[in-house]
Amino acid sequence: MKFLRSHLMGKWIEPGEDSGVHVIDPSTEEPLAAVSSAGVDFKAAVEYAQLEGGRALREMTFAERGELLIGMSRAIHSKRNELLELSMRSCGSTRKDSKFDIDGATGTLYHYGALGKELGETHRLVDGEGEPLGRSAIYWGRHGRIARDGVAVHINAFNFPAWGFAEKAAAAILAGMPVITKPASSTSIVTESCIEAVVDSAVLPDGVLGLICGSIGDLFDHLTGQDVVAFTGSAATAFRIRSNENLLRQSTPINIEADSLNAAILAPDVEPGSELWRLFVREVTREVTQKSGQKCTAVRRIMVPHDRISDLQQDLCEELATRVVGNPFDESVNVGPLATADQLSSVLEGTASLREVADLVAGSGERVDGIGAEPGKGYFFAPTLLQLRDGDSDDLIHDLEVFGPVSTICPFDGEAATAACLNSKGKGTLVTSVYSDQEQWTFDLLRRCGAWSGRFYLASEKMISQAPGSGVALPQSLHGGPGRAGGGEELGGIRALDLYTQRVAFQGTRRAVESFLTDR
Amino acid sequence: MKFLRSHLMGKWIEPGEDSGVHVIDPSTEEPLAAVSSAGVDFKAAVEYAQLEGGRALREMTFAERGELLIGMSRAIHSKRNELLELSMRSCGSTRKDSKFDIDGATGTLYHYGALGKELGETHRLVDGEGEPLGRSAIYWGRHGRIARDGVAVHINAFNFPAWGFAEKAAAAILAGMPVITKPASSTSIVTESCIEAVVDSAVLPDGVLGLICGSIGDLFDHLTGQDVVAFTGSAATAFRIRSNENLLRQSTPINIEADSLNAAILAPDVEPGSELWRLFVREVTREVTQKSGQKCTAVRRIMVPHDRISDLQQDLCEELATRVVGNPFDESVNVGPLATADQLSSVLEGTASLREVADLVAGSGERVDGIGAEPGKGYFFAPTLLQLRDGDSDDLIHDLEVFGPVSTICPFDGEAATAACLNSKGKGTLVTSVYSDQEQWTFDLLRRCGAWSGRFYLASEKMISQAPGSGVALPQSLHGGPGRAGGGEELGGIRALDLYTQRVAFQGTRRAVESFLTDR
Repeated sequence: MKFLRSHLMGKWIEPGEDSGVHVIDPSTEEPLAAVSSAGVDFKAAVEYAQLEGGRALREMTFAERGELLIGMSRAIHSKRNELLELSMRSCGSTRKDSKFDIDGATGTLYHYGALGKELGETHRLVDGEGEPLGRSAIYWGRHGRIARDGVAVHINAFNFPAWGFAEKAAAAILAGMPVITKPASSTSIVTESCIEAVVDSAVLPDGVLGLICGSIGDLFDHLTGQDVVAFTGSAATAFRIRSNENLLRQSTPINIEADSLNAAILAPDVEPGSELWRLFVREVTREVTQKSGQKCTAVRRIMVPHDRISDLQQDLCEELATRVVGNPFDESVNVGPLATADQLSSVLEGTASLREVADLVAGSGERVDGIGAEPGKGYFFAPTLLQLRDGDSDDLIHDLEVFGPVSTICPFDGEAATAACLNSKGKGTLVTSVYSDQEQWTFDLLRRCGAWSGRFYLASEKMISQAPGSGVALPQSLHGGPGRAGGGEELGGIRALDLYTQRVAFQGTRRAVESFLTDR
Repeated sequence: MKFLRSHLMGKWIEPGEDSGVHVIDPSTEEPLAAVSSAGVDFKAAVEYAQLEGGRALREMTFAERGELLIGMSRAIHSKRNELLELSMRSCGSTRKDSKFDIDGATGTLYHYGALGKELGETHRLVDGEGEPLGRSAIYWGRHGRIARDGVAVHINAFNFPAWGFAEKAAAAILAGMPVITKPASSTSIVTESCIEAVVDSAVLPDGVLGLICGSIGDLFDHLTGQDVVAFTGSAATAFRIRSNENLLRQSTPINIEADSLNAAILAPDVEPGSELWRLFVREVTREVTQKSGQKCTAVRRIMVPHDRISDLQQDLCEELATRVVGNPFDESVNVGPLATADQLSSVLEGTASLREVADLVAGSGERVDGIGAEPGKGYFFAPTLLQLRDGDSDDLIHDLEVFGPVSTICPFDGEAATAACLNSKGKGTLVTSVYSDQEQWTFDLLRRCGAWSGRFYLASEKMISQAPGSGVALPQSLHGGPGRAGGGEELGGIRALDLYTQRVAFQGTRRAVESFLTDR
């Protein structure tokens, strides 16, 4: 059995023992590797990153840190094929879905690398313009952002073992903070391989990027108010992290990106069969089936005017019929298995719960055998569409997230006010998408529920040729959302650096404040 | 006995019973009023603010909300003399210190009112420029800030019953969020009187500003992820608020501004007797004695090169000798009593602890009788200076905040690196002040500990004529700090609105995104 290693304090650490946590091929149920962080000295690892990695990064300019990211991007890209295969095998992702993760990682690292080069040969970020604070310009004030004097601890979800690590690390390293990254064990073999590529390329100074495969032990007990924790995953784990006494006492900044009940809203002006209608059908289907629905931005609620329901059911079912569930190594397959046995159980259970208030429109609610897989083996679940039953309460639909290829149609009366209210019932989303060519309808909705989502994807006929779908987390746009979605912020270009920097007010003579902040 | 009232759901609520919590005149120990929120329906109060107040504010433009703030400022200013006297009587603040609070409140409201008028006839804030997200400008992205769809709950400290309420309320109301404010009971008589002025002026729509005098009961249980909590006060209470299970589960944004061990650092280039030296002596003395040292920005640690210690001790003691402790209504008095019996106990205890590692330079460490006060009555404590003893550990000096007119001299070797290290030992400050005419020395220090403070006050010869001292929280500059200081951000001009708005990424056609965000 292969053991996954951690990489801390500038060296690889072989686990001392098999903790029984294994990486399993979800198509065959064969074990691929064992994961354990037994024997790791987390206190020493934190201090090493804070001191060695932090010092090295803070001495660099943004342009130099940008070079590091471009180097990381190249190192990972150089073993792209190996990583894609590893992702197909360990995550159950199709080759296309694996590219979404691996190329997303290298693309985001490259994007932030280029941003660093744009920021240039400076060490500090200014925040707004300077201004006189007194009666004249003698007493001057300006804000700057200074890299926090600690380590960024990143805890990632199983669904994006490459992109999840890379998008967080890119922002922290560019800001000037070293990183310790901890992937979800079930798919950590991909992250370990990415880090191996980076380590082998020798592009990073020691201490800038650490990896923990396995549990993080007592790591949180060693963090201070200058460190940062960023987590992506379930609300339950987010609550546990946020409740950590040391983090609470130290005011350690914590960023949470939790799964949410994202909504796709079809406005009443969209005619069945129109271009925009067809975009809606294609994109909703993709957002339900991509990565087998294991995507924090997946569409969980489909809001459709009453009089469009039967047309839409038919078109969605037709589109879903093109999806083939099975082993990603079978060429006919375009939807892989769920990532783990636990995920399958949870999706089966969740779908059963939804059926208490919703009828099946597509899918059986049961595990299925996969194409190219041994019968009875593998965590396969077919794309599943439900529809809220007339007269039943919709509370559960807006509250229970089933983290698989499962989505529920919620009929509404076509009013923007109603759609806004339904969207808000999800208690905060990462993304809400609206399909309409009537701007006033869309704006009415946005005015009513604009604060309930971290991102609004406004689809209309004019942008169809360039529409990427609502599920893509672009490095330029913020990723995160209020309430249920965790209340965090990631990406968004330079905004991603906010988490890793302390915003500081500098007051003094104009000359002193400006020279320090602009590095002159 | 006068009962303080709460103002919720558009009406005054008389407390149903005396809970035994009283407002006491700290100079005479006479009770002035009783405080209780018994009988308040907090759930209804929260819903009323969310629905009525929120709707009214969100329909207004920034200019209109700015008008509300200017109206509040005028209403409070119109009873300035009454408020000053109430502050002198209930807080024990001198008339000058009371102006700091009352005029600070009206000034900050006015400042944000003017900012609203500058922002003009729009409802939404843009955040950065728009940009193409695809290969052409067809698919466009831009960020905006949208008022959160909830209520801002403000919990304030006893030391600034007017300014503390006003600076928080100004930002929330301008952003478009209704407010429920809860002053510390011991000085809430001043806040009640401010709110009474605002209510009588009828300047605000119903539900925009609520007041709770007394405990907040189960209020937190009724908040969601769209609501906001902002707290100023002790680290212990901050921890309790942050640990609230409902707030943690809902991802309710929480801003904490906690007391911190602010440092004033004298650089080795400053010659005894020079202009800058004299500024240091004057400002440190003011930052130790103003509001009887009960100021979150007060200087708690005075870092001085070894060879300047004896000159500085002498000059500080000379300056402190001009301070007269007593009843604020006595004209010779310039330092009032501590605000409560509990504060006095805590300061006595804290000073005794500090004396385990530090010697008294000024003050006796005991309660004193106040000028113009009955002997044995009143919570008087004289300005107290200590100095770390040679050879003793300085850990306690950097860890124990004594919230009164108490500060400790920490000798150091004159190196910027040492001063930076000592500053960081405080685990995060609201403000650190540096007195030097050698920019390179200052910059060296800032490079080493720039992320450990929310604000740096850089004093030098050139700005002496305009120097306001480090303790003033200007509306233009951020107020808050990392770690020990709570990790929050208040004020800072328009930055104050961040807490009360959701930053949202809008993606769509350029036309749709820009028209919605710019309100055209």
